Amino acid sequence: MKLATRKNNTRDGELLVVSSDNTRAVSAAPVAPTMQALLDDWSAKASALDALYADLNAGRLADAFAVDESLLHSPFPRAYAWIDGSAYINHIVLVRKARGAEPPATLETDPLVYQGGSDTFLGPRDGIPLANPDWGCDFESEIAIVMDDTPQGVTPDEVPQYIRLVMLCNDVSLRNLIPAELAKSFGFFVSKPSSAFSPFAVTPDELGEAWNGGRMHRPLVTHLNGELYGNPDSGPEMHFSFHEIVAHVCKTRALSAGTIVGSGTISNKDRSKGSSCLAEKRMIEKIDTGAFVTPFMTYGDRVTIEMFNEQGDSLFGRIDQTVVPMD
Amino acid sequence: MKLATRKNNTRDGELLVVSSDNTRAVSAAPVAPTMQALLDDWSAKASALDALYADLNAGRLADAFAVDESLLHSPFPRAYAWIDGSAYINHIVLVRKARGAEPPATLETDPLVYQGGSDTFLGPRDGIPLANPDWGCDFESEIAIVMDDTPQGVTPDEVPQYIRLVMLCNDVSLRNLIPAELAKSFGFFVSKPSSAFSPFAVTPDELGEAWNGGRMHRPLVTHLNGELYGNPDSGPEMHFSFHEIVAHVCKTRALSAGTIVGSGTISNKDRSKGSSCLAEKRMIEKIDTGAFVTPFMTYGDRVTIEMFNEQGDSLFGRIDQTVVPMD
Repeated sequence: MKLATRKNNTRDGELLVVSSDNTRAVSAAPVAPTMQALLDDWSAKASALDALYADLNAGRLADAFAVDESLLHSPFPRAYAWIDGSAYINHIVLVRKARGAEPPATLETDPLVYQGGSDTFLGPRDGIPLANPDWGCDFESEIAIVMDDTPQGVTPDEVPQYIRLVMLCNDVSLRNLIPAELAKSFGFFVSKPSSAFSPFAVTPDELGEAWNGGRMHRPLVTHLNGELYGNPDSGPEMHFSFHEIVAHVCKTRALSAGTIVGSGTISNKDRSKGSSCLAEKRMIEKIDTGAFVTPFMTYGDRVTIEMFNEQGDSLFGRIDQTVVPMD
Repeated sequence: MKLATRKNNTRDGELLVVSSDNTRAVSAAPVAPTMQALLDDWSAKASALDALYADLNAGRLADAFAVDESLLHSPFPRAYAWIDGSAYINHIVLVRKARGAEPPATLETDPLVYQGGSDTFLGPRDGIPLANPDWGCDFESEIAIVMDDTPQGVTPDEVPQYIRLVMLCNDVSLRNLIPAELAKSFGFFVSKPSSAFSPFAVTPDELGEAWNGGRMHRPLVTHLNGELYGNPDSGPEMHFSFHEIVAHVCKTRALSAGTIVGSGTISNKDRSKGSSCLAEKRMIEKIDTGAFVTPFMTYGDRVTIEMFNEQGDSLFGRIDQTVVPMD
């Protein structure tokens, strides 16, 4: 099934069930008022929403209404945990080169993850508020999954049973603040402001063969200011699968229901596929020409992130964000 | 006022108002069923709980019951954000020496913070589940505050109006996992399992002169296996006040209501005050004798953390945890 969260006057919004073609929706409130309420009790509540989804797709619901993606929040307006991996080796090598840092020695054996802010996500059509353009605002087009309660010590083979939803993410980064922050060795804190997620969160069964082995196997399409910026395949070069990333983070802790886990920036070695962030393109320019050419985002710059199935249907709806001044 | 959360069969427990002497409590559920529900709407709900607190202290509530700290969860069983600072320079210098790392060049001008797991806190009397004693399990005795919605760009002078509660924390660390994790430069992730907080969360007005200038000014008393381990004063050597830490983390983001901000491990230069974690004591032993002597915690080791006012009354109740095998 497909789920979304409609903005209302509450912090967590209203949970919706969305039709498979993204056009119609119905409130899930009688079953679960919010996405977190659903995840808190997935095993008891999901089947009722599945039934609602079947009725919605069959046109049997009189209270269904047209979906307006611009009225949606991220599926979780706030979450108890947002753990972002960095599973695409090509991305790690390029962005570390960009900031003059070495990749970790354990690059190919030990997944990289950081804990990101999850208390104030942006909506998929919200502006990206930027206080200072000198901070080097960048987007990062990613895949993210939502976990049910997952026990400490879980193995990669056991992870699939705990994965509930798949969605897209724009993990906003402030590139010019990262080097000083990482130099303190405690993580990205001030260099990673609020992220946004795709309008629709989708159960893995809905994705067919595209969801396979703990990886999404489709191009992730990013446009910058209306022009195609990148469409790398999210599958083959994801060095650590989501199953491996989750097993890694569960080494010393359990995950609680509603935890969001990210893939890191999708990246392919094939340069014709473009990039999923500005930092990579800038580094390639630096390697090729000796100079960074593409600027970071500033006020008015617009990024869209979307993924389509083989028939060209949008799987998760469109993240579509423009950089705006702070209120 | 004083607040607590009683364990029940829900993820967030039941909010209680607790008497100033920690002995009696009453359910806050008619006003706010959970601590997060209170923080989500503090301005509308706090005054009703203040009135309940006055009635409770005056013995006017027939439904008051005796407090049993062993039945309490952390004030927030889960929270949307846990941002832990490291504001005691003496601690930073000692623990970095312990792991052969240099303090950051900006040690005294730029606060250190990391984002910690907030989705599964331990209760103040819960065991500390440890899968592998070789991981080097350590406690860290800290102060923590709870924020209301706090705007991006807030200045230190503006921070006090957004601080709602003060509590204690045991920030559990897996010392032997930290060096490899920090070497990857993305933060502590797997080396920081679930933390626990004191039974009672207290409004700043309740703390009198002990809460002053964005710092608690009282000894933080830690016992290890029944013996006094440390009682450093939490005030004078807190290099960055909570006001400065919050302003730092708000440079690039707003905080949402219920965000918990930590002080880092309390530490005094005066060695007669002991320590608030094992890593410091071990480093002092190494400096003095050439060898680490005190082992990290293993199964059965017990740590208690408590803070008293000048009259000897416990301000926040007692964190009292024993290391246990994983279930």
